[in-house]
Amino acid sequence: MKIGMVGLGRMGSDMVRRLLRAGHECVVYDVSDQAVEQLVGEGAQGAGSPAELVSALTPPRAVWLMLPAAITGDIVTTLLGLLDRDDTIVDGGNSSYRDDIDRAETAAAQGVHYVDCGTSGGVWGLDRGYCLMIGGDTTAVERLDPVFAALAPGVAAAERTPGRAGDPSPAERGYLHCGSPGAGHFVKMVHNGIEYALMAAYAEGLNVIRGAGVGARGREADAETAPLRDPRYYPYDKIDLAAVAEVWRRGSVIGSWLLDLTAEALLADPGLDQFTGRVSDSGEGRWTSIAAIEEGVSAPLLTAALFSRFASRGSELFADKVQSAQRKEFGGHVEKPVPR
Amino acid sequence: MKIGMVGLGRMGSDMVRRLLRAGHECVVYDVSDQAVEQLVGEGAQGAGSPAELVSALTPPRAVWLMLPAAITGDIVTTLLGLLDRDDTIVDGGNSSYRDDIDRAETAAAQGVHYVDCGTSGGVWGLDRGYCLMIGGDTTAVERLDPVFAALAPGVAAAERTPGRAGDPSPAERGYLHCGSPGAGHFVKMVHNGIEYALMAAYAEGLNVIRGAGVGARGREADAETAPLRDPRYYPYDKIDLAAVAEVWRRGSVIGSWLLDLTAEALLADPGLDQFTGRVSDSGEGRWTSIAAIEEGVSAPLLTAALFSRFASRGSELFADKVQSAQRKEFGGHVEKPVPR
Amino acid sequence: MKIGMVGLGRMGSDMVRRLLRAGHECVVYDVSDQAVEQLVGEGAQGAGSPAELVSALTPPRAVWLMLPAAITGDIVTTLLGLLDRDDTIVDGGNSSYRDDIDRAETAAAQGVHYVDCGTSGGVWGLDRGYCLMIGGDTTAVERLDPVFAALAPGVAAAERTPGRAGDPSPAERGYLHCGSPGAGHFVKMVHNGIEYALMAAYAEGLNVIRGAGVGARGREADAETAPLRDPRYYPYDKIDLAAVAEVWRRGSVIGSWLLDLTAEALLADPGLDQFTGRVSDSGEGRWTSIAAIEEGVSAPLLTAALFSRFASRGSELFADKVQSAQRKEFGGHVEKPVPR
Amino acid sequence: MKIGMVGLGRMGSDMVRRLLRAGHECVVYDVSDQAVEQLVGEGAQGAGSPAELVSALTPPRAVWLMLPAAITGDIVTTLLGLLDRDDTIVDGGNSSYRDDIDRAETAAAQGVHYVDCGTSGGVWGLDRGYCLMIGGDTTAVERLDPVFAALAPGVAAAERTPGRAGDPSPAERGYLHCGSPGAGHFVKMVHNGIEYALMAAYAEGLNVIRGAGVGARGREADAETAPLRDPRYYPYDKIDLAAVAEVWRRGSVIGSWLLDLTAEALLADPGLDQFTGRVSDSGEGRWTSIAAIEEGVSAPLLTAALFSRFASRGSELFADKVQSAQRKEFGGHVEKPVPR
Repeated sequence: MKIGMVGLGRMGSDMVRRLLRAGHECVVYDVSDQAVEQLVGEGAQGAGSPAELVSALTPPRAVWLMLPAAITGDIVTTLLGLLDRDDTIVDGGNSSYRDDIDRAETAAAQGVHYVDCGTSGGVWGLDRGYCLMIGGDTTAVERLDPVFAALAPGVAAAERTPGRAGDPSPAERGYLHCGSPGAGHFVKMVHNGIEYALMAAYAEGLNVIRGAGVGARGREADAETAPLRDPRYYPYDKIDLAAVAEVWRRGSVIGSWLLDLTAEALLADPGLDQFTGRVSDSGEGRWTSIAAIEEGVSAPLLTAALFSRFASRGSELFADKVQSAQRKEFGGHVEKPVPR
Repeated sequence: MKIGMVGLGRMGSDMVRRLLRAGHECVVYDVSDQAVEQLVGEGAQGAGSPAELVSALTPPRAVWLMLPAAITGDIVTTLLGLLDRDDTIVDGGNSSYRDDIDRAETAAAQGVHYVDCGTSGGVWGLDRGYCLMIGGDTTAVERLDPVFAALAPGVAAAERTPGRAGDPSPAERGYLHCGSPGAGHFVKMVHNGIEYALMAAYAEGLNVIRGAGVGARGREADAETAPLRDPRYYPYDKIDLAAVAEVWRRGSVIGSWLLDLTAEALLADPGLDQFTGRVSDSGEGRWTSIAAIEEGVSAPLLTAALFSRFASRGSELFADKVQSAQRKEFGGHVEKPVPR
Repeated sequence: MKIGMVGLGRMGSDMVRRLLRAGHECVVYDVSDQAVEQLVGEGAQGAGSPAELVSALTPPRAVWLMLPAAITGDIVTTLLGLLDRDDTIVDGGNSSYRDDIDRAETAAAQGVHYVDCGTSGGVWGLDRGYCLMIGGDTTAVERLDPVFAALAPGVAAAERTPGRAGDPSPAERGYLHCGSPGAGHFVKMVHNGIEYALMAAYAEGLNVIRGAGVGARGREADAETAPLRDPRYYPYDKIDLAAVAEVWRRGSVIGSWLLDLTAEALLADPGLDQFTGRVSDSGEGRWTSIAAIEEGVSAPLLTAALFSRFASRGSELFADKVQSAQRKEFGGHVEKPVPR
Repeated sequence: MKIGMVGLGRMGSDMVRRLLRAGHECVVYDVSDQAVEQLVGEGAQGAGSPAELVSALTPPRAVWLMLPAAITGDIVTTLLGLLDRDDTIVDGGNSSYRDDIDRAETAAAQGVHYVDCGTSGGVWGLDRGYCLMIGGDTTAVERLDPVFAALAPGVAAAERTPGRAGDPSPAERGYLHCGSPGAGHFVKMVHNGIEYALMAAYAEGLNVIRGAGVGARGREADAETAPLRDPRYYPYDKIDLAAVAEVWRRGSVIGSWLLDLTAEALLADPGLDQFTGRVSDSGEGRWTSIAAIEEGVSAPLLTAALFSRFASRGSELFADKVQSAQRKEFGGHVEKPVPR
């Protein structure tokens, strides 16, 4: 089928390529003419404006947005001014599912379908396919089925789950209609919350192995610091972390794609010296913890992973100072002069 | 080569089978005659006692133990009374690495090698192979290389990590000599700590999705409980968790073997009604958190996963009562009469 | 001065009493005639409706609301229809500070002042005084100074902080103008977040002491559960928790009013057998964690305290079941048959 | 009565002073002659060696140790070589309760009593009195009652708990015989675990208030970072933290001695600019979390407080780098160039 794509960053461009490869037609637009030209050179049809893009499509039209969350709202407004009843907007970016709920209401008021599509796959999606988590009304989602099927990895990407039989369901092919508007981004949001926790779990574990030589290296013991009770139990100062990550990839319970990537990163740079350890967060992790809280559901790991990212960027400094100040007040403890 | 195996539970028996398949000879012993006979029927040589097992091996002997942690110490003592200088004991069970350090010292005093081998793979290891994390002196570990190679999954079990070239290292084949005695169980211990956290991460995320219909279901609002600020943002009461786990298996960032298993479990029993939610812990998760603490390294997720298991078994009840009592004292709050 | 009070629950009634004692005049209204009559009998002036209450006050009027958060919005709307320019509404309940921001804007559009006042003190406030955290414009807050001063505990309630001199500031007398509309409830919200954490900290510590006899009581050790490494270090099965809480009240670093209350509760009911351990949460703790997340500030303890309340009400059950299911899948582990 | 004191640091010296004030006789020893002379000038009897100290006491002797945990063991060994049957050693320092259990066994083998006494009160104890948590056999503990009573704050230090009547118990006077050897240090250990959590709770809460102006200050929004959904709800960039801590001291639920000290510290240095935020930990917090883990009891807040101290000293750096590396691998995310 024919679809419009607005936003030709890395993700958007690769998705167009994957659609073209599958035989779909794509009309593409971006504020960068260069990005448009690049894809025109690869077989897409270019558009110089949202209006031009809309007029190049045939009703019922479908326009897929692949934009930073901060911009999506304005483009949706623009498109709602251009589209006709029964056309569809798909937001494939990282919007908050709450925005989907609001925007879908606005769109529905003028008869336009609004579909949200959480997209996982990162820079690997072009070849590996994208995992798609979809929200919206059934009419629009079913109409876009060929597009979703082309973008998704397909059933061969993983062994079939025992108990599944017959024609593979969309979920088995890598895309899922999760529910009403926002449901796709909601599921994608939680996916990212889980992702943060998986990443932090490996990171913590590797850090514990890295510290296992504390008994060999010795540790200060003074009036304020109790000595390590059993230094003989911490002699391991030479464990090869890259090899550990590698060995866990085969046969262990903790094998995963994230572990594969971790093994690759540690092989290339065993001390990870190229990194400062400032870990960004894009929003979904925050929203996941907020959803847990509003639902009254505990999410200690997901939230701890989020907080460790905040802390990596220095957010704890003042709280730490408060504790140093308290220690000075009640115990006369002076901070050790080692720089933070 | 020829090796003795003591302990023929599920793991031990399957490891014997995998060794036999690879052409090794196994002398086997267990307190259960039936377990011995079963494996004799499959090609192993049976032994009626540890002494008989030892005398059936040729020096330098190797005896592999696959026993509950609580029993291993006694068998080690027995074997040290039977073995000769340059023989080797391998503990493949779930012992604390601290016991390895102590036992290796005792063994070394009489010239016996002590090798610890953390073994991951569970009930799937027979076919999938076992991931082996090994500690001990180099002489003994190298001598056992054919055994480790036969038990491990082999290089084909995962795609090769970009950057790895030439003959696959043992780590790439699924086994790793991590360091001095105890290092194998140390790495396996942390592996399990990570495992707990990965499991809890998926569990929390699925629980947040499961709760996403709280706005549709309504929630009490009284003098003590503030109303949900925006119930319209929690309308999703019909998201299919089995399908969500399935879709994440293809193309997403959070694909893993644990996710495969989770998808299988949710397919078979969507409400998981056969479970009460009482989650056991075998020790390694505890030891991982203790190691982190003694090293002075944070491990908030690994520890949160551990604590959630404790809590699943009711350990928080008294602490919760303390808080109910405090609320009654300062605010006159009476507990809501809903049963726990 | 003369002030109107709407909402004569325990908190509202006691605040009227404290104001009357200080010589202020109060016009009171509640949906319960009985509550109104009770206070009329103690010297207040009764009103049969919000309109009657408003007309009994002299401009510039001040009406204080002491209502459940779920009701406050409607009453504010009613009052805005009755009040004149330069009158003031004070919300002394547990509203979200976000509602204050919204309502203050609406009120300001018709020239009415909106003051939010977070009120701590619980059932003890009548005699002990209330700690007041205030937001709103300076004109309105200053005008109400005599009311705040009467409700607050006064400077004698605590020893003067070293370094403070001269006339005691309002903060030293127990009330503080924190900032623009919502700032009072924001500070009160964080106060409650801290309160949850302080409560949980004592609860956890007492629970650890309560468990210190695990070595004496013995613990199961089987193939799944490692034995306690050093049972001799957990012999304390008779520590008197009520006495421990009592001894900490004098000279220790952790003395506090919450500890006083904890000691009292443990003295009266050492096993806290009258409680089921179902700990409610009223909203502020949730909002505090959400604020931390949106600010990008870690709050691991405040959030852990909140999550432990959720868990006390069973919110983790499904997540626990997921983990039991995973354990069964990869290790064939069957749940222990002990009831949850 | 007459007692020996070994270790005349700040705590030890002040305890001698408090004992002298109460009419007790003290024989004092320290490696620093100057410390001995200072107290001789205040009425104590000096000793030039442990042997001299022991010979200056009358059987049954009592020697109180107030030493860094790393040194205590050696001095106990020395003293056991000098003392007679029925003499008593009191360890008033910050030893692990496990050392008490071991040392009490050794001492008991030669008929010497071993008493452990956890001591809280810090630099304020001389005037405020010390909260004493005591373990050991009843004979020795009862014999030392006058010493404990003199060191403890006495019943007047806090209002009597409702329900307590008659002669105040020792707990009400500020000292408690908690149980067998080690029980005193066990309870003190948990006391410190709670202390860490209380400190961190205030610190986190104040940090959340400090961050409440993030909406006014603006925050970056780019392809990686979602914009703050509602900046209008974070306008508070001028809340006076010293005043907030002050107002909470009167009438609020979270009043405590630690809050008093926090208010004092914030008054003196509102930005806490003299601190770097490197928070030490002395051992008890670690041991408390380890005890919780070994008991199978959750302690999320106590452990989070401990981990935040580790993190304040940079222990997370490598784990953060792992996560940055993972993000680069799967998403091509480059770390933001802001220095950590």
